[in-house]
Amino acid sequence: MAMATLARSVLVTGSNRGIGLELVRQLAASPRPPQHIFATCRDASGLRGKALQELAARHPSIKLIQLDTVDLPSIRGAMQTVETHLEGQGLNLLINNAGVGSQATLQSVDAQEMLATFAVNVVGPLQVAKEFLPLLEKAAKDAGTEGLSCSRAAIINVSSKVGSIGLCLGVLEAPMYPYRASKAAQNMVTRCLAEELRDKGILCAAIHPGWVKTDMGTEQAPMTVERSMQGILEVLGILSQETCGAFLDWEGNRLPW
Amino acid sequence: MAMATLARSVLVTGSNRGIGLELVRQLAASPRPPQHIFATCRDASGLRGKALQELAARHPSIKLIQLDTVDLPSIRGAMQTVETHLEGQGLNLLINNAGVGSQATLQSVDAQEMLATFAVNVVGPLQVAKEFLPLLEKAAKDAGTEGLSCSRAAIINVSSKVGSIGLCLGVLEAPMYPYRASKAAQNMVTRCLAEELRDKGILCAAIHPGWVKTDMGTEQAPMTVERSMQGILEVLGILSQETCGAFLDWEGNRLPW
Repeated sequence: MAMATLARSVLVTGSNRGIGLELVRQLAASPRPPQHIFATCRDASGLRGKALQELAARHPSIKLIQLDTVDLPSIRGAMQTVETHLEGQGLNLLINNAGVGSQATLQSVDAQEMLATFAVNVVGPLQVAKEFLPLLEKAAKDAGTEGLSCSRAAIINVSSKVGSIGLCLGVLEAPMYPYRASKAAQNMVTRCLAEELRDKGILCAAIHPGWVKTDMGTEQAPMTVERSMQGILEVLGILSQETCGAFLDWEGNRLPW
Repeated sequence: MAMATLARSVLVTGSNRGIGLELVRQLAASPRPPQHIFATCRDASGLRGKALQELAARHPSIKLIQLDTVDLPSIRGAMQTVETHLEGQGLNLLINNAGVGSQATLQSVDAQEMLATFAVNVVGPLQVAKEFLPLLEKAAKDAGTEGLSCSRAAIINVSSKVGSIGLCLGVLEAPMYPYRASKAAQNMVTRCLAEELRDKGILCAAIHPGWVKTDMGTEQAPMTVERSMQGILEVLGILSQETCGAFLDWEGNRLPW
Protein backbone atom coordinates (compact mmCIF):
# COMPACT_ATOMS: atom_id res chain seq x y z
CA MET A 1 0.00 0.00 0.00
CA ALA A 2 1.16 3.51 -0.80
CA MET A 3 2.64 5.29 2.21
CA ALA A 4 1.73 8.81 1.12
CA THR A 5 -1.13 10.58 2.86
CA LEU A 6 -4.35 9.82 1.03
CA ALA A 7 -5.65 13.32 1.71
CA ARG A 8 -5.08 16.09 4.22
CA SER A 9 -8.75 16.14 5.26
CA VAL A 10 -11.39 13.45 4.88
CA LEU A 11 -15.07 13.31 5.81
CA VAL A 12 -16.89 9.98 6.14
CA THR A 13 -20.67 9.83 6.62
CA GLY A 14 -22.32 6.97 8.49
CA SER A 15 -19.08 6.29 10.33
CA ASN A 16 -20.46 4.86 13.58
CA ARG A 17 -20.39 1.26 12.41
CA GLY A 18 -19.65 -1.17 9.57
CA ILE A 19 -17.73 0.14 6.61
CA GLY A 20 -17.67 3.74 7.77
CA LEU A 21 -16.22 2.90 11.17
CA GLU A 22 -13.53 0.70 9.66
CA LEU A 23 -12.63 3.38 7.10
CA VAL A 24 -12.14 5.92 9.88
CA ARG A 25 -10.16 3.38 11.93
CA GLN A 26 -7.78 2.56 9.07
CA LEU A 27 -7.37 6.21 8.10
CA ALA A 28 -6.46 7.14 11.68
CA ALA A 29 -4.09 4.18 12.05
CA SER A 30 -2.26 4.73 8.76
CA PRO A 31 1.45 5.63 8.90
CA ARG A 32 0.70 9.15 7.69
CA PRO A 33 -2.87 9.83 8.73
CA PRO A 34 -4.90 12.76 7.43
CA GLN A 35 -4.67 15.90 9.53
CA HIS A 36 -8.46 15.96 9.85
CA ILE A 37 -10.75 12.93 9.86
CA PHE A 38 -14.33 14.13 10.13
CA ALA A 39 -16.29 11.10 11.29
CA THR A 40 -19.97 11.88 11.00
CA CYS A 41 -23.11 10.01 11.98
CA ARG A 42 -26.71 10.73 12.95
CA ASP A 43 -26.23 10.04 16.61
CA ALA A 44 -22.62 11.01 17.37
CA SER A 45 -23.07 11.46 21.12
CA GLY A 46 -25.52 8.61 21.80
CA LEU A 47 -25.21 4.88 22.31
CA ARG A 48 -25.05 4.10 18.59
CA GLY A 49 -21.88 6.21 18.36
CA LYS A 50 -20.09 4.39 21.20
CA ALA A 51 -17.45 2.50 19.15
CA LEU A 52 -16.67 5.68 17.24
CA GLN A 53 -16.40 7.71 20.45
CA GLU A 54 -13.86 5.22 21.82
CA LEU A 55 -11.88 5.33 18.59
CA ALA A 56 -11.88 9.14 18.55
CA ALA A 57 -10.65 9.22 22.16
CA ARG A 58 -7.46 7.42 21.00
CA HIS A 59 -6.89 9.54 17.86
CA PRO A 60 -6.95 13.35 18.10
CA SER A 61 -7.19 13.57 14.28
CA ILE A 62 -10.73 12.17 14.46
CA LYS A 63 -13.46 14.75 14.99
CA LEU A 64 -16.91 13.35 15.70
CA ILE A 65 -19.63 15.39 14.05
CA GLN A 66 -23.41 15.04 14.07
CA LEU A 67 -24.73 14.74 10.50
CA ASP A 68 -28.05 13.29 9.41
CA THR A 69 -27.75 13.02 5.62
CA VAL A 70 -31.50 13.38 5.05
CA ASP A 71 -31.83 16.52 7.18
CA LEU A 72 -30.67 19.67 5.40
CA PRO A 73 -30.20 21.82 8.55
CA SER A 74 -28.08 19.00 10.01
CA ILE A 75 -25.91 18.87 6.85
CA ARG A 76 -25.47 22.65 6.95
CA GLY A 77 -24.60 22.59 10.64
CA ALA A 78 -21.99 19.90 10.05
CA MET A 79 -20.56 21.86 7.14
CA GLN A 80 -20.07 24.92 9.38
CA THR A 81 -18.40 22.82 12.08
CA VAL A 82 -16.06 21.27 9.51
CA GLU A 83 -15.30 24.69 8.05
CA THR A 84 -14.32 25.96 11.51
CA HIS A 85 -12.00 23.00 12.09
CA LEU A 86 -10.37 23.50 8.69
CA GLU A 87 -9.37 27.09 9.53
CA GLY A 88 -9.51 28.37 5.99
CA GLN A 89 -8.39 25.16 4.24
CA GLY A 90 -10.63 23.21 1.93
CA LEU A 91 -11.95 19.66 2.35
CA ASN A 92 -10.10 17.17 0.15
CA LEU A 93 -12.14 14.02 0.33
CA LEU A 94 -15.84 13.43 0.97
CA ILE A 95 -16.87 9.79 1.35
CA ASN A 96 -20.64 9.35 1.14
CA ASN A 97 -20.93 6.07 2.99
CA ALA A 98 -24.21 6.45 4.92
CA GLY A 99 -26.90 4.26 3.42
CA VAL A 100 -29.68 1.80 4.17
CA GLY A 101 -30.43 -1.67 2.89
CA SER A 102 -33.82 -2.93 1.84
CA GLN A 103 -34.72 -6.54 1.25
CA ALA A 104 -38.19 -5.82 -0.16
CA THR A 105 -39.46 -8.18 -2.85
CA LEU A 106 -41.97 -7.43 -5.60
CA GLN A 107 -44.63 -8.87 -3.28
CA SER A 108 -43.65 -6.89 -0.20
CA VAL A 109 -42.44 -3.61 -1.69
CA ASP A 110 -44.46 -0.44 -1.12
CA ALA A 111 -44.11 3.25 -1.96
CA GLN A 112 -43.04 4.17 1.56
CA GLU A 113 -40.06 1.79 1.55
CA MET A 114 -39.04 2.79 -1.98
CA LEU A 115 -39.06 6.50 -1.12
CA ALA A 116 -37.38 6.08 2.28
CA THR A 117 -34.57 4.12 0.61
CA PHE A 118 -34.20 6.75 -2.13
CA ALA A 119 -34.07 9.51 0.46
CA VAL A 120 -31.11 7.96 2.30
CA ASN A 121 -29.22 6.37 -0.61
CA VAL A 122 -29.74 8.96 -3.36
CA VAL A 123 -30.92 12.29 -2.00
CA GLY A 124 -28.60 12.10 1.03
CA PRO A 125 -25.32 11.76 -0.91
CA LEU A 126 -26.46 14.40 -3.42
CA GLN A 127 -27.36 16.94 -0.74
CA VAL A 128 -24.19 16.30 1.26
CA ALA A 129 -22.11 16.74 -1.92
CA LYS A 130 -23.96 19.94 -2.76
CA GLU A 131 -23.56 21.50 0.68
CA PHE A 132 -19.87 20.60 1.03
CA LEU A 133 -19.09 21.72 -2.53
CA PRO A 134 -17.65 25.11 -1.50
CA LEU A 135 -15.10 23.36 0.74
CA LEU A 136 -14.24 20.82 -1.98
CA GLU A 137 -13.86 23.62 -4.55
CA LYS A 138 -11.56 25.45 -2.17
CA ALA A 139 -9.38 22.35 -1.76
CA ALA A 140 -9.26 21.85 -5.53
CA LYS A 141 -8.26 25.47 -6.09
CA ASP A 142 -5.67 25.61 -3.29
CA ALA A 143 -4.00 22.32 -4.26
CA GLY A 144 -1.63 24.01 -6.69
CA THR A 145 -1.77 20.93 -8.92
CA GLU A 146 -3.55 19.98 -12.11
CA GLY A 147 -5.24 16.63 -12.58
CA LEU A 148 -7.74 14.83 -10.41
CA SER A 149 -7.05 12.82 -7.25
CA CYS A 150 -8.39 12.09 -3.79
CA SER A 151 -5.54 14.10 -2.31
CA ARG A 152 -6.70 17.16 -4.26
CA ALA A 153 -10.52 17.03 -4.10
CA ALA A 154 -12.93 14.12 -4.51
CA ILE A 155 -16.41 12.81 -3.80
CA ILE A 156 -16.60 9.03 -3.36
CA ASN A 157 -20.03 7.45 -3.23
CA VAL A 158 -20.19 4.01 -1.66
CA SER A 159 -22.32 2.01 -4.08
CA SER A 160 -23.00 -1.69 -4.60
CA LYS A 161 -22.55 -4.28 -7.31
CA VAL A 162 -26.23 -5.21 -6.91
CA GLY A 163 -26.91 -1.66 -8.12
CA SER A 164 -25.39 -2.56 -11.51
CA ILE A 165 -28.28 -2.67 -14.00
CA GLY A 166 -26.05 -4.43 -16.50
CA LEU A 167 -25.08 -7.27 -14.15
CA CYS A 168 -28.48 -7.53 -12.44
CA LEU A 169 -26.98 -10.08 -10.03
CA GLY A 170 -29.13 -12.62 -8.22
CA VAL A 171 -32.49 -10.88 -8.53
CA LEU A 172 -34.41 -14.12 -8.04
CA GLU A 173 -32.56 -14.95 -4.79
CA ALA A 174 -32.42 -11.37 -3.46
CA PRO A 175 -34.86 -9.06 -5.25
CA MET A 176 -34.16 -5.99 -3.05
CA TYR A 177 -36.10 -3.68 -5.38
CA PRO A 178 -35.73 -0.47 -3.33
CA TYR A 179 -32.01 -1.01 -2.66
CA ARG A 180 -31.13 -1.90 -6.26
CA ALA A 181 -33.14 0.97 -7.72
CA SER A 182 -31.64 3.43 -5.23
CA LYS A 183 -28.08 2.37 -6.03
CA ALA A 184 -28.70 2.65 -9.79
CA ALA A 185 -30.04 6.17 -9.20
CA GLN A 186 -27.09 6.98 -6.95
CA ASN A 187 -24.71 5.78 -9.67
CA MET A 188 -26.38 8.19 -12.09
CA VAL A 189 -25.90 11.01 -9.60
CA THR A 190 -22.21 10.06 -9.25
CA ARG A 191 -21.78 10.07 -13.01
CA CYS A 192 -23.51 13.46 -13.39
CA LEU A 193 -21.45 14.99 -10.58
CA ALA A 194 -18.28 13.63 -12.20
CA GLU A 195 -19.15 15.37 -15.49
CA GLU A 196 -20.14 18.59 -13.82
CA LEU A 197 -17.27 18.89 -11.32
CA ARG A 198 -14.38 17.59 -13.42
CA ASP A 199 -13.54 21.07 -14.70
CA LYS A 200 -13.49 22.37 -11.13
CA GLY A 201 -10.78 19.85 -10.27
CA ILE A 202 -13.07 17.56 -8.27
CA LEU A 203 -13.01 13.82 -8.93
CA CYS A 204 -16.17 11.72 -8.41
CA ALA A 205 -16.44 7.95 -8.41
CA ALA A 206 -18.66 5.11 -7.19
CA ILE A 207 -17.06 2.29 -5.17
CA HIS A 208 -18.42 -1.19 -4.47
CA PRO A 209 -16.95 -2.41 -1.18
CA GLY A 210 -17.70 -6.09 -1.81
CA TRP A 211 -20.02 -8.19 0.26
CA VAL A 212 -18.66 -7.71 3.74
CA LYS A 213 -19.49 -8.90 7.24
CA THR A 214 -21.36 -5.89 8.66
CA ASP A 215 -24.81 -5.36 10.15
CA MET A 216 -26.04 -4.72 6.59
CA GLY A 217 -23.96 -7.46 4.94
CA THR A 218 -24.67 -10.03 7.70
CA GLU A 219 -22.32 -12.77 8.95
CA GLN A 220 -22.98 -14.73 5.73
CA ALA A 221 -20.74 -12.33 3.83
CA PRO A 222 -17.49 -13.89 2.56
CA MET A 223 -15.15 -10.98 3.37
CA THR A 224 -14.10 -9.06 6.45
CA VAL A 225 -14.64 -5.34 6.54
CA GLU A 226 -10.91 -4.86 7.30
CA ARG A 227 -9.90 -6.55 4.04
CA SER A 228 -12.42 -4.57 1.98
CA MET A 229 -11.40 -1.21 3.45
CA GLN A 230 -7.69 -1.93 2.85
CA GLY A 231 -8.58 -2.48 -0.78
CA ILE A 232 -10.73 0.63 -0.99
CA LEU A 233 -8.04 2.87 0.49
CA GLU A 234 -5.57 1.52 -2.07
CA VAL A 235 -8.05 2.18 -4.88
CA LEU A 236 -8.76 5.71 -3.63
CA GLY A 237 -5.03 6.38 -3.64
CA ILE A 238 -4.72 5.69 -7.36
CA LEU A 239 -7.88 7.36 -8.67
CA SER A 240 -7.18 9.93 -11.40
CA GLN A 241 -8.66 11.61 -14.49
CA GLU A 242 -8.91 8.16 -16.07
CA THR A 243 -11.17 6.79 -13.36
CA CYS A 244 -13.19 9.97 -12.75
CA GLY A 245 -16.85 9.01 -13.11
CA ALA A 246 -16.12 5.28 -12.93
CA PHE A 247 -17.83 2.48 -10.98
CA LEU A 248 -15.06 0.41 -9.37
CA ASP A 249 -14.95 -2.43 -6.90
CA TRP A 250 -12.66 -2.63 -3.85
CA GLU A 251 -9.94 -4.20 -6.01
CA GLY A 252 -10.10 -1.45 -8.63
CA ASN A 253 -11.98 -3.50 -11.26
CA ARG A 254 -14.47 -1.56 -13.36
CA LEU A 255 -18.11 -2.59 -13.02
CA PRO A 256 -20.75 -2.07 -15.72
CA TRP A 257 -23.53 0.42 -14.98
CA MET B 1 -45.24 -2.26 -40.44
CA ALA B 2 -46.68 -5.62 -39.40
CA MET B 3 -50.41 -5.86 -39.94
CA ALA B 4 -51.06 -8.38 -37.14
CA THR B 5 -52.74 -7.18 -33.97
CA LEU B 6 -50.09 -6.06 -31.51
CA ALA B 7 -52.13 -7.36 -28.60
CA ARG B 8 -55.74 -8.15 -27.80
CA SER B 9 -55.76 -5.78 -24.82
CA VAL B 10 -53.48 -2.85 -24.04
CA LEU B 11 -53.33 -0.41 -21.15
CA VAL B 12 -51.50 2.92 -21.48
CA THR B 13 -50.94 5.17 -18.45
CA GLY B 14 -50.67 8.94 -18.82
CA SER B 15 -52.62 8.78 -22.05
CA ASN B 16 -54.28 12.21 -21.98
CA ARG B 17 -51.48 13.94 -23.89
CA GLY B 18 -48.11 13.66 -25.57
CA ILE B 19 -46.74 10.21 -26.17
CA GLY B 20 -49.54 8.39 -24.36
CA LEU B 21 -52.28 10.09 -26.34
CA GLU B 22 -50.55 9.39 -29.65
CA LEU B 23 -49.99 5.73 -28.71
CA VAL B 24 -53.69 5.32 -28.01
CA ARG B 25 -54.56 7.15 -31.25
CA GLN B 26 -52.34 4.95 -33.39
CA LEU B 27 -53.46 1.75 -31.65
CA ALA B 28 -57.11 2.64 -32.24
CA ALA B 29 -56.48 3.63 -35.87
CA SER B 30 -54.45 0.54 -36.77
CA PRO B 31 -55.89 -1.85 -39.40
CA ARG B 32 -56.45 -4.51 -36.72
CA PRO B 33 -56.85 -2.59 -33.48
CA PRO B 34 -56.77 -4.26 -30.06
CA GLN B 35 -60.16 -5.33 -28.75
CA HIS B 36 -59.57 -3.28 -25.59
CA ILE B 37 -57.52 -0.11 -25.33
CA PHE B 38 -57.51 1.04 -21.71
CA ALA B 39 -56.49 4.68 -21.85
CA THR B 40 -55.78 5.84 -18.33
CA CYS B 41 -54.92 9.20 -16.83
CA ARG B 42 -55.25 11.03 -13.52
CA ASP B 43 -58.06 13.27 -14.66
CA ALA B 44 -60.02 11.23 -17.21
CA SER B 45 -63.26 13.20 -16.93
CA GLY B 46 -61.80 16.70 -16.52
CA LEU B 47 -60.44 19.35 -18.84
CA ARG B 48 -56.99 17.75 -19.06
CA GLY B 49 -58.58 14.64 -20.52
CA LYS B 50 -60.46 16.50 -23.27
CA ALA B 51 -58.43 15.33 -26.30
CA LEU B 52 -58.62 11.76 -25.04
CA GLN B 53 -62.38 12.02 -24.47
CA GLU B 54 -62.85 13.18 -28.07
CA LEU B 55 -60.68 10.34 -29.35
CA ALA B 56 -62.58 7.76 -27.28
CA ALA B 57 -65.89 9.06 -28.62
CA ARG B 58 -64.76 8.05 -32.13
CA HIS B 59 -63.36 4.62 -31.15
CA PRO B 60 -65.45 2.23 -29.06
CA SER B 61 -62.36 0.09 -28.37
CA ILE B 62 -60.97 2.90 -26.20
CA LYS B 63 -62.05 2.84 -22.56
CA LEU B 64 -61.15 5.89 -20.51
CA ILE B 65 -60.17 4.98 -16.99
CA GLN B 66 -59.13 7.12 -14.04
CA LEU B 67 -55.70 6.02 -12.78
CA ASP B 68 -53.29 8.07 -10.68
CA THR B 69 -50.08 6.02 -10.71
CA VAL B 70 -48.91 7.35 -7.34
CA ASP B 71 -52.18 6.56 -5.56
CA LEU B 72 -52.54 2.90 -4.63
CA PRO B 73 -56.35 2.93 -4.17
CA SER B 74 -56.64 4.57 -7.61
CA ILE B 75 -54.46 1.85 -9.17
CA ARG B 76 -56.54 -0.85 -7.51
CA GLY B 77 -59.79 0.76 -8.59
CA ALA B 78 -58.55 0.94 -12.19
CA MET B 79 -57.46 -2.68 -12.02
CA GLN B 80 -60.96 -3.75 -10.99
CA THR B 81 -62.55 -1.70 -13.78
CA VAL B 82 -60.19 -3.23 -16.33
CA GLU B 83 -60.87 -6.71 -14.96
CA THR B 84 -64.61 -6.17 -15.41
CA HIS B 85 -64.16 -5.01 -19.02
CA LEU B 86 -61.94 -8.03 -19.79
CA GLU B 87 -64.71 -10.47 -18.74
CA GLY B 88 -62.33 -13.20 -17.60
CA GLN B 89 -59.56 -12.56 -20.10
CA GLY B 90 -56.10 -11.40 -19.07
CA LEU B 91 -54.37 -8.12 -19.96
CA ASN B 92 -51.73 -8.57 -22.65
CA LEU B 93 -49.81 -5.34 -22.67
CA LEU B 94 -49.18 -2.73 -19.97
CA ILE B 95 -47.43 0.42 -21.14
CA ASN B 96 -46.15 2.49 -18.21
CA ASN B 97 -45.97 5.84 -19.93
CA ALA B 98 -47.01 8.29 -17.19
CA GLY B 99 -44.02 10.29 -16.00
CA VAL B 100 -42.78 13.74 -15.09
CA GLY B 101 -39.81 15.74 -16.23
CA SER B 102 -37.51 17.73 -14.00
CA GLN B 103 -34.99 20.28 -15.15
CA ALA B 104 -33.38 20.77 -11.74
CA THR B 105 -29.66 21.52 -11.73
CA LEU B 106 -27.16 20.77 -8.96
CA GLN B 107 -27.74 24.33 -7.76
CA SER B 108 -31.54 24.21 -7.78
CA VAL B 109 -32.23 20.57 -6.85
CA ASP B 110 -33.81 19.77 -3.49
CA ALA B 111 -35.04 16.66 -1.69
CA GLN B 112 -38.68 17.42 -2.42
CA GLU B 113 -38.18 17.52 -6.21
CA MET B 114 -35.97 14.41 -6.17
CA LEU B 115 -38.55 12.40 -4.22
CA ALA B 116 -41.56 13.69 -6.15
CA THR B 117 -39.85 12.69 -9.41
CA PHE B 118 -38.96 9.24 -8.03
CA ALA B 119 -42.54 8.74 -6.87
CA VAL B 120 -43.99 9.29 -10.35
CA ASN B 121 -41.21 7.83 -12.52
CA VAL B 122 -40.10 4.84 -10.42
CA VAL B 123 -42.62 3.94 -7.74
CA GLY B 124 -45.58 4.57 -10.07
CA PRO B 125 -44.57 2.09 -12.80
CA LEU B 126 -43.54 -0.49 -10.18
CA GLN B 127 -46.84 -0.26 -8.30
CA VAL B 128 -48.91 -0.34 -11.48
CA ALA B 129 -46.99 -3.41 -12.68
CA LYS B 130 -47.45 -5.08 -9.31
CA GLU B 131 -51.21 -4.46 -9.13
CA PHE B 132 -51.89 -5.51 -12.72
CA LEU B 133 -49.68 -8.58 -12.42
CA PRO B 134 -52.57 -11.04 -11.87
CA LEU B 135 -54.15 -9.89 -15.16
CA LEU B 136 -50.83 -10.14 -17.01
CA GLU B 137 -50.19 -13.60 -15.55
CA LYS B 138 -53.61 -14.66 -16.70
CA ALA B 139 -52.91 -13.47 -20.24
CA ALA B 140 -49.53 -15.25 -20.24
CA LYS B 141 -51.14 -18.48 -19.07
CA ASP B 142 -54.14 -18.35 -21.41
CA ALA B 143 -52.08 -17.51 -24.50
CA GLY B 144 -51.45 -21.15 -25.32
CA THR B 145 -48.01 -20.23 -26.67
CA GLU B 146 -44.47 -20.44 -25.40
CA GLY B 147 -41.99 -17.60 -25.75
CA LEU B 148 -42.31 -13.96 -24.88
CA SER B 149 -44.09 -11.23 -26.83
CA CYS B 150 -46.30 -8.18 -26.45
CA SER B 151 -49.19 -10.16 -27.88
CA ARG B 152 -48.83 -12.70 -25.06
CA ALA B 153 -48.01 -10.61 -21.96
CA ALA B 154 -45.65 -7.66 -21.51
CA ILE B 155 -44.78 -4.65 -19.40
CA ILE B 156 -43.20 -1.79 -21.33
CA ASN B 157 -41.71 1.07 -19.33
CA VAL B 158 -41.24 4.32 -21.23
CA SER B 159 -37.73 5.41 -20.32
CA SER B 160 -35.29 7.95 -21.72
CA LYS B 161 -31.84 7.99 -23.25
CA VAL B 162 -30.84 10.66 -20.73
CA GLY B 163 -31.46 7.98 -18.12
CA SER B 164 -28.54 5.96 -19.56
CA ILE B 165 -25.74 6.12 -16.96
CA GLY B 166 -23.28 4.83 -19.55
CA LEU B 167 -24.07 7.52 -22.12
CA CYS B 168 -24.57 10.34 -19.60
CA LEU B 169 -25.64 12.61 -22.46
CA GLY B 170 -25.37 16.37 -22.24
CA VAL B 171 -25.20 16.73 -18.47
CA LEU B 172 -23.53 20.14 -18.70
CA GLU B 173 -26.24 21.53 -21.00
CA ALA B 174 -29.18 19.79 -19.27
CA PRO B 175 -28.30 18.48 -15.81
CA MET B 176 -31.83 17.29 -14.93
CA TYR B 177 -30.59 15.43 -11.83
CA PRO B 178 -34.00 14.20 -10.58
CA TYR B 179 -35.15 13.08 -14.04
CA ARG B 180 -31.92 11.26 -14.92
CA ALA B 181 -31.66 9.55 -11.52
CA SER B 182 -35.31 8.50 -11.66
CA LYS B 183 -34.95 7.00 -15.14
CA ALA B 184 -31.82 5.06 -14.12
CA ALA B 185 -33.75 3.70 -11.13
CA GLN B 186 -36.73 2.90 -13.36
CA ASN B 187 -34.41 1.02 -15.74
CA MET B 188 -33.22 -1.06 -12.80
CA VAL B 189 -36.83 -1.85 -11.91
CA THR B 190 -37.49 -2.87 -15.53
CA ARG B 191 -34.46 -5.17 -15.53
CA CYS B 192 -35.46 -6.77 -12.20
CA LEU B 193 -39.05 -7.28 -13.36
CA ALA B 194 -37.76 -8.85 -16.58
CA GLU B 195 -35.69 -11.38 -14.60
CA GLU B 196 -38.47 -12.13 -12.18
CA LEU B 197 -41.37 -12.40 -14.64
CA ARG B 198 -39.63 -14.12 -17.57
CA ASP B 199 -40.53 -17.59 -16.24
CA LYS B 200 -44.15 -16.54 -15.90
CA GLY B 201 -44.24 -15.73 -19.62
CA ILE B 202 -44.22 -11.95 -19.15
CA LEU B 203 -41.81 -9.84 -21.18
CA CYS B 204 -40.45 -6.56 -19.75
CA ALA B 205 -38.48 -3.88 -21.58
CA ALA B 206 -37.55 -0.21 -21.39
CA ILE B 207 -38.18 1.99 -24.43
CA HIS B 208 -36.70 5.39 -25.28
CA PRO B 209 -39.19 7.26 -27.48
CA GLY B 210 -36.64 9.76 -28.78
CA TRP B 211 -36.74 13.48 -28.18
CA VAL B 212 -40.21 14.37 -29.39
CA LYS B 213 -42.33 17.48 -29.69
CA THR B 214 -44.59 17.17 -26.63
CA ASP B 215 -45.29 19.36 -23.61
CA MET B 216 -42.37 17.62 -21.89
CA GLY B 217 -40.09 17.51 -24.93
CA THR B 218 -40.93 21.09 -26.01
CA GLU B 219 -41.13 22.45 -29.57
CA GLN B 220 -37.32 22.32 -29.81
CA ALA B 221 -37.47 18.55 -30.18
CA PRO B 222 -36.41 17.28 -33.63
CA MET B 223 -39.07 14.59 -34.06
CA THR B 224 -42.84 14.47 -34.20
CA VAL B 225 -44.65 12.30 -31.72
CA GLU B 226 -46.39 10.52 -34.65
CA ARG B 227 -43.07 9.36 -36.09
CA SER B 228 -41.77 8.17 -32.72
CA MET B 229 -44.92 6.22 -31.88
CA GLN B 230 -44.92 4.52 -35.30
CA GLY B 231 -41.41 3.33 -34.52
CA ILE B 232 -42.31 2.22 -31.01
CA LEU B 233 -45.30 0.18 -32.19
CA GLU B 234 -43.06 -1.56 -34.73
CA VAL B 235 -40.48 -2.30 -32.04
CA LEU B 236 -43.13 -3.61 -29.65
CA GLY B 237 -44.33 -5.95 -32.38
CA ILE B 238 -40.95 -7.67 -32.67
CA LEU B 239 -39.98 -7.93 -28.99
CA SER B 240 -39.16 -11.49 -27.92
CA GLN B 241 -37.08 -13.57 -25.46
CA GLU B 242 -33.96 -12.00 -26.99
CA THR B 243 -35.01 -8.46 -26.11
CA CYS B 244 -36.64 -9.25 -22.76
CA GLY B 245 -35.00 -6.97 -20.20
CA ALA B 246 -33.46 -4.73 -22.86
CA PHE B 247 -33.28 -0.93 -23.16
CA LEU B 248 -34.22 -0.04 -26.73
CA ASP B 249 -34.87 3.15 -28.61
CA TRP B 250 -37.84 3.81 -30.91
CA GLU B 251 -35.88 2.32 -33.82
CA GLY B 252 -35.05 -0.88 -31.95
CA ASN B 253 -31.39 0.00 -31.24
CA ARG B 254 -30.05 -1.20 -27.92
CA LEU B 255 -28.97 1.50 -25.48
CA PRO B 256 -26.37 1.01 -22.74
CA TRP B 257 -27.59 1.12 -19.15
